Amino acid sequence: MKAIGFKTSLPISSQESFIEFETPTPNLSGRDLLVKIQAVSVNPVDTKIRQNTAKDTVLENPKIIGWDAVGIVEAVGEEVSLFKVGDEVFYAGDITRAGSNAEYQLVDERIVGKKPTSLSIEASAAMPLTALTAWETLFDRMRLSSEKDKGKTLLIIGGAGGVGSIAIQLAKKLLGLTVIATASRPETIAWCKKMGADVVVNHKDLVNEVRQAGFHFVDFIYDAVDVNGYWDAVVELIKPQGHINSITGSGTPILINKLKTKSVTFSWEFMYTRSSFQTEDMIEQYHILNRVSALLEEGTLISTHQNTLTGLSAETFKKAHAQLESGTTIGKLVVKY
Amino acid sequence: MKAIGFKTSLPISSQESFIEFETPTPNLSGRDLLVKIQAVSVNPVDTKIRQNTAKDTVLENPKIIGWDAVGIVEAVGEEVSLFKVGDEVFYAGDITRAGSNAEYQLVDERIVGKKPTSLSIEASAAMPLTALTAWETLFDRMRLSSEKDKGKTLLIIGGAGGVGSIAIQLAKKLLGLTVIATASRPETIAWCKKMGADVVVNHKDLVNEVRQAGFHFVDFIYDAVDVNGYWDAVVELIKPQGHINSITGSGTPILINKLKTKSVTFSWEFMYTRSSFQTEDMIEQYHILNRVSALLEEGTLISTHQNTLTGLSAETFKKAHAQLESGTTIGKLVVKY
Repeated sequence: MKAIGFKTSLPISSQESFIEFETPTPNLSGRDLLVKIQAVSVNPVDTKIRQNTAKDTVLENPKIIGWDAVGIVEAVGEEVSLFKVGDEVFYAGDITRAGSNAEYQLVDERIVGKKPTSLSIEASAAMPLTALTAWETLFDRMRLSSEKDKGKTLLIIGGAGGVGSIAIQLAKKLLGLTVIATASRPETIAWCKKMGADVVVNHKDLVNEVRQAGFHFVDFIYDAVDVNGYWDAVVELIKPQGHINSITGSGTPILINKLKTKSVTFSWEFMYTRSSFQTEDMIEQYHILNRVSALLEEGTLISTHQNTLTGLSAETFKKAHAQLESGTTIGKLVVKY
Repeated sequence: MKAIGFKTSLPISSQESFIEFETPTPNLSGRDLLVKIQAVSVNPVDTKIRQNTAKDTVLENPKIIGWDAVGIVEAVGEEVSLFKVGDEVFYAGDITRAGSNAEYQLVDERIVGKKPTSLSIEASAAMPLTALTAWETLFDRMRLSSEKDKGKTLLIIGGAGGVGSIAIQLAKKLLGLTVIATASRPETIAWCKKMGADVVVNHKDLVNEVRQAGFHFVDFIYDAVDVNGYWDAVVELIKPQGHINSITGSGTPILINKLKTKSVTFSWEFMYTRSSFQTEDMIEQYHILNRVSALLEEGTLISTHQNTLTGLSAETFKKAHAQLESGTTIGKLVVKY
């Protein structure tokens, strides 16, 4: 099969930052599905892994990355019970295995959902990774519920990004939270409002912006940009007994001790925890994706898909990564094969 | 009224580490109760505040510390609606106000509970601060429930201390968790078992001890000793998607980033958050104390009271603090006036 990958970590503008190559179609067994990929979307995890996996080294075999995917089940392992050949599926995959920037991919059925039938391939491909991340944060890490938490306030740092866009929707539509999102350009502000944000504030003077909008403290904070960069603002704005979640990781130690007098809770959300550790509950991702699929079909949620590039080629993925690295992407960028 | 306090932070063996003095009985208003104190218990927060509040300085007026108390309502403010004169009460008070090491104390009715009628004054005095701390951790910070979490595993670091002793009971009796507690001496091991711990392990080789007891990961960890000292063990032992709570604070930065790949949640519990910030829900402490009171009366919970000293005097509090600072206290030490 044809695949796109890299043997060494290079700036995206380099000739060899992505290469095209042939590799055997992988062998199927157990609970795996073999999926023929129709479209993928790109996420910050893709660029991070391309930039860091093969620094100052050259891999023997090219590494295939990319995890969000939409495709058709081509064959099933002998223990598969949730899907059959011909099913249209979407998923964000498993970071410890080969990615979706290829003609075919293996994926465990427990982390796969049914593609929303009424949505296009592109609109569907935009959703799995970001929807799983936002869902797991709100429901599994923060354990929020509409009964207990309706009307409480959530500040989303990075409202117009992929995760921010779907987090705004889930928080509004499923939990009834009051959502304050950060954005600074006219087009990102408009996008956050389209996603359902009640208030949009500029991240550059975050504490004052939030307070001028009428919120002294916020109950919950979702950082999707840079937990270190916003730490002092977050410590200031979080309500006593509040909950902060970050998905970004941290380059330098976070001074978590600053949260003690307020009895604040801090969570990490990493969408690949369940598949990496093969947790007992990894089938939750199957359930979450099917819930998201149904909510997209009935129109409660809308796809965050914004732009499409075409063709399974090194050139397409160079363009896609360059665009993502510019840091100005709104919603999601999809590559259709 | 007579009170015990200090003007400067001194080693407990110093003559002036505690002094006895006369001060006016405080004036009552609003939602405050004036309580005539009958007994108090000592907690690590007492020794920390004595050691650190007046370092290299001499206060103009002596500082009265001590917060756990049992007493009788002597008078009520004009807005009081939950208690009346003559009620027997227990509470852990408010760290921003004068403490209970005195004949009388003011306390906001929203953080006071009804003393358990069938328990002695001493047995009751042992409970408020530690029960509130353990309760808020399990139910408010970790949001645990017997429906969702029964049978899951909780590791308590410091099982024989005041908070550990009541946390074991709440986790077993109210949540049905499997509790692993740390203790290293024959008498502390026996105490943890009496409190209801399923397994007791030595903290000195924590990872191996827990694994040899048959637990590769644990769902929840409650640190009541030293979050920095046990950090690497905690990172190793916590289950992916698990939850860690600490009440100890941290002298050096905690490397919270180590929890990211496991999507772990970390909480601080500080029992004085509600009263210090006058949170909208501070009346929760009234409800929690009344729940604990009822559970003690019906025998579901047992008092963690162990030893009693007698007399409202500087000498008694010197003895009490010296005993607490030795680090070998089992359960709770009470001072009866």
